[in-house]
Amino acid sequence: MYDIAIIGKGPAGISAAINAFARNKNVIMFGGDSKKVLSSPSIPNYPGLPDIKGTELVEKLNFHLSQTNTSFSDKRVTAVYSMGDSFSIQAEQDMYEAKALILAVGVDFKKTIEGEDTFLGNGVSYCATCDAPLYKGKKVAVIGYNHESIEETNFLSEICSKVYYIPMHNEKYSFNSNVEVVLDKPIKFQGEMQAKQLVLQNSKIEADGFFVLKDSYPLSSLVPGLLTDGPHVVVNKYMETNCWRKPNSTI
Amino acid sequence: MYDIAIIGKGPAGISAAINAFARNKNVIMFGGDSKKVLSSPSIPNYPGLPDIKGTELVEKLNFHLSQTNTSFSDKRVTAVYSMGDSFSIQAEQDMYEAKALILAVGVDFKKTIEGEDTFLGNGVSYCATCDAPLYKGKKVAVIGYNHESIEETNFLSEICSKVYYIPMHNEKYSFNSNVEVVLDKPIKFQGEMQAKQLVLQNSKIEADGFFVLKDSYPLSSLVPGLLTDGPHVVVNKYMETNCWRKPNSTI
Repeated sequence: MYDIAIIGKGPAGISAAINAFARNKNVIMFGGDSKKVLSSPSIPNYPGLPDIKGTELVEKLNFHLSQTNTSFSDKRVTAVYSMGDSFSIQAEQDMYEAKALILAVGVDFKKTIEGEDTFLGNGVSYCATCDAPLYKGKKVAVIGYNHESIEETNFLSEICSKVYYIPMHNEKYSFNSNVEVVLDKPIKFQGEMQAKQLVLQNSKIEADGFFVLKDSYPLSSLVPGLLTDGPHVVVNKYMETNCWRKPNSTI
Repeated sequence: MYDIAIIGKGPAGISAAINAFARNKNVIMFGGDSKKVLSSPSIPNYPGLPDIKGTELVEKLNFHLSQTNTSFSDKRVTAVYSMGDSFSIQAEQDMYEAKALILAVGVDFKKTIEGEDTFLGNGVSYCATCDAPLYKGKKVAVIGYNHESIEETNFLSEICSKVYYIPMHNEKYSFNSNVEVVLDKPIKFQGEMQAKQLVLQNSKIEADGFFVLKDSYPLSSLVPGLLTDGPHVVVNKYMETNCWRKPNSTI
């Protein structure tokens, strides 16, 4: 059981880990280097380090982080469950326990596809590694927003009979022969209890399952029951969420 | 008219100035180097600058600040008035105008003396430079928490007939002959409409005026009408106070 689990390895997550270490806490951190920071040629507003390159700031932050006793997991967090006085963190196939959770995941301004949230767990999945076995020998579609979605699609193509791949990025890809690339824009998922059809701008795809693979997921699906306000988490003045708070505080 | 006035030159105030500059704002800043930071032999939790000396961090922050076009005033802010769509900032004898105000004054955990707030403006003053003329040829008492209060006491002794000085610090002082040092602990101010007496642990001082000279003042007296919660400012989720907010937001 860790004292604190931190999800996110950007400047906010690293700052949280450094402060937790100063307070002698036992911390596990999930996440990779911030792509947003890494890709910045010059950051003008990090006080004390004027006009620093993104790669150089990540290096400095990681060096500071390496001087703490933080544990790391490179597994992707797929869900967090509030257990009353602790949290269970599901990271791909592994489970972790922590007394407290710090969400430092940043804000994702990408829109979700219509029906993505309502069909999640019912034909729509965010995790190929977790849910591939459900679709053994069946037809699936992958809406891929990042590089990892290419590898995941090849992995799915070894298990499923057919995989449709809808690329939402500009990276190069090469697939096994049972993967069909569809260059079109996803509009919405359709179905009764279960998503059965993806409607795109110029076509439709029928499949048994749909994978939406992107860098980050809506917080309300990452932490079921978490009160959010658009892409933001609702907190009280102690930065506590509705999932956990001190006995006498309100939200 | 400045776009933004920032009160406080600690890390928070400097961060605000750097970000305001990046957004092309015209900024004036009040305050001196943070004594709290300067006096720290090693700061473990400033991300990216592990175990930095306080003096070194102040140097780095000030260097970054010097690359902005921030204006500075070394005058002490004595009051801020909300004018509806701007703020008037009184700094000793000077007035400044700004469209927005950022309070980065930190938290002062020192207790006020009983009656200090209720008699403020009625026999109790926070500013010798401002209010000395009211007590020409009269008797005053100074409760001095910092080095500046020593200079202010000598200044008052040139105008007033007699000055009592109650030191609340360990610095050395030397005074004109009409200054009487009282080594005792202030408990409360007394009087009818006006403070007339300072009750100390082992003595009492009768005077026409009382100066409480310290590094920082309760925010509610610095910004009349500002909603506070103990030493903290009450804000909404946009960090807006009750003195100014966007047309549709609440607090």
